[in-house]
Amino acid sequence: MSDSALMFDPVPGLRLATAAAGIRYTHRDDLALFEFVDGTQCAAVFTRNAFRAAPVMVAERHLAARAPRFLLINAGNANAGTGTRGLADAEAACAALAELAGEDPRAVLPFSTGVIGEPLPVARIRAALPGLLAGLDERAWPAAARAILTTDTRAKLVSRRFQVAGRTAALTGIAKGSGMIRPDMATMLAFLATDAAVEPSLLRRCLAEAVDRSFNAITVDGDTSTNDACVLAATGRLGGPAIADPGSADYRALADAVTEVCEALAEAIIRDGEGATKLVTLVIEEAADQDEARRVADAIAHSPLVKTALFASDPNWGRILAAVGRAGLSGLAIAAVRIWLGEVLIVTDGGRAPDYTEEAGRAVMAAPEILIRVALGRGRVTTRVLTCDLSYDYVRINAEYRS
Amino acid sequence: MSDSALMFDPVPGLRLATAAAGIRYTHRDDLALFEFVDGTQCAAVFTRNAFRAAPVMVAERHLAARAPRFLLINAGNANAGTGTRGLADAEAACAALAELAGEDPRAVLPFSTGVIGEPLPVARIRAALPGLLAGLDERAWPAAARAILTTDTRAKLVSRRFQVAGRTAALTGIAKGSGMIRPDMATMLAFLATDAAVEPSLLRRCLAEAVDRSFNAITVDGDTSTNDACVLAATGRLGGPAIADPGSADYRALADAVTEVCEALAEAIIRDGEGATKLVTLVIEEAADQDEARRVADAIAHSPLVKTALFASDPNWGRILAAVGRAGLSGLAIAAVRIWLGEVLIVTDGGRAPDYTEEAGRAVMAAPEILIRVALGRGRVTTRVLTCDLSYDYVRINAEYRS
Repeated sequence: MSDSALMFDPVPGLRLATAAAGIRYTHRDDLALFEFVDGTQCAAVFTRNAFRAAPVMVAERHLAARAPRFLLINAGNANAGTGTRGLADAEAACAALAELAGEDPRAVLPFSTGVIGEPLPVARIRAALPGLLAGLDERAWPAAARAILTTDTRAKLVSRRFQVAGRTAALTGIAKGSGMIRPDMATMLAFLATDAAVEPSLLRRCLAEAVDRSFNAITVDGDTSTNDACVLAATGRLGGPAIADPGSADYRALADAVTEVCEALAEAIIRDGEGATKLVTLVIEEAADQDEARRVADAIAHSPLVKTALFASDPNWGRILAAVGRAGLSGLAIAAVRIWLGEVLIVTDGGRAPDYTEEAGRAVMAAPEILIRVALGRGRVTTRVLTCDLSYDYVRINAEYRS
Repeated sequence: MSDSALMFDPVPGLRLATAAAGIRYTHRDDLALFEFVDGTQCAAVFTRNAFRAAPVMVAERHLAARAPRFLLINAGNANAGTGTRGLADAEAACAALAELAGEDPRAVLPFSTGVIGEPLPVARIRAALPGLLAGLDERAWPAAARAILTTDTRAKLVSRRFQVAGRTAALTGIAKGSGMIRPDMATMLAFLATDAAVEPSLLRRCLAEAVDRSFNAITVDGDTSTNDACVLAATGRLGGPAIADPGSADYRALADAVTEVCEALAEAIIRDGEGATKLVTLVIEEAADQDEARRVADAIAHSPLVKTALFASDPNWGRILAAVGRAGLSGLAIAAVRIWLGEVLIVTDGGRAPDYTEEAGRAVMAAPEILIRVALGRGRVTTRVLTCDLSYDYVRINAEYRS
């Protein structure tokens, strides 16, 4: 576990605690608790996988009922594919915490990540709750960032400050995710909080926009998880009136900061992709619309042939060309398509660019960060997707996980 | 190179030859020639990848102009992503052969497989042509099956006999393909021939039906190739009138035999999938239509998480459940979905089946051939797709290929 940069700002109005509940791992914390001050507003987005995990369903229901006071997050067990028992288990964990804290059970949002299909060990979680409540601390962000990890090798913790009516607001977020990463709504798990006061509908809008540009634009393996969730909390402890005008400079400052934190966390997830050795940015330009731009990006990002060539630092651009060709764009004129590796034009007029040299391609592919740019010649829409390569370690990690 | 079973029937009216042209490989044949007797009818299907290779475009054009006399097939170079030069090279190879044989250049169909984006070494092909023409032999099927391989480890050669008006007709086919296998029309390359006489439109129908049930229902890595092509030739040397009635017993016998040969070749491709250690059959039942059945099959077959679990013989059924959930079926009622590993029910009512035991799951996954069956509870449509696992060797083969 290497935590490259765990600098962060605490968020007034929010305390955290972690514990080693022994859910799956030994010798490490695997349970995290967020406590919000009364009056905190929360927005959340959840996975679109049809097999949504029990905690996702419970969290969504609780959030619809009232403003949350607690987030209860466990690693090691996803409580997904667990049917009605999974729902009862998630509710039982919320109820146990609520009873100890003297709160409504619906004030607790549960989140789980880990192995699918195993019953949640509720008794172990229950046993850890008194210690969690006793240990709440405004500065426990790094411990929480570590406690929610599964196959991740690095904690992901990002802070930004922004100005609201002359005051400096804090914004801090954590995320986990390394495999089963092709978020369709939000990534595996991400939690952000600010001390600014924000009107609820604007908080939801701010989160939706940020997620679309960050977590929904990354993919490790094309496998959308059953447990994806992203929460943005605004404690209001900064003081002053709530941000309520979407045209205001305050909202712009908030929205930019939230997007920046989400993008930084999303990039950290890709850098920590299972077995990843390369950070790959795909830019698809001149598309007719977002849908076709995204289809081309996905065809490249999910091609095992492209991903293994990236791992080998091999400028095997024919595999990129083949992926563009199979993306299913109707009436694609291949003579209009251009493909670049970094700044090097590799494909034009349906074939290899006249000036292209293998040496130039190799130089781009040798770097740890690679840009692949595709211009489709069909319109003016651009999209950007982050992905990584496919290495021996991806196979090892996923063949060994659970064993 | 192990050729498990290269028993075959020659097809009267068809001769073959192979040569070592040094296109990319050394110490092996990499060029194959088919010569058809005058009067032979040919049907063919080609890739739907937008970046179709030059030989695919030329072969389609030549086939539209007249009945072919020759198929000229090289391995080691795909002549794809080669622009206008690629088209000129494919035409030049056809013209060189036609001149030697005293034939129309359009009587030659070119096929290429191998690395994308390199110019076709036409001079080496031209130099090998006189030897090919001199060496034509009705019994050279096994040599041709070997000459067209790239990363394949086994030759793929299948024969069936069928009855036409009391005569026994021969049907023999070869195929190659191991990676970039997710045919969308036909697989990488497959060539079938019969000595029965078949009316041209019926021959096309027969091939289209067979391909849909065989090559279009397999996937190694989801990467549709630029060079996929499948040809079915009918020499007519069996004698008797051409099969012309789609309702006749003769047509049924032909169609069944062609489908059987295509299915056997398609299965051989999956068994020889790059790095494959498992043959996996996906059966999706109770779908509302073919499209959604196929989407569920593809989501499972292309999930790197499912494929690595298969490699590890790990009954990690949560990954299968997550793949079904992300297939994008609108309004999927997860309580109605059942999933089986072999005969073992693993998922029902949104979670693990009550009787499921890890031991039972492990027993199924330990076998070299695995059946995954998913019932969606939405309709009466069934589809069947063959795929394989994702192993270290897949990464090795594709990281090293070209290096």
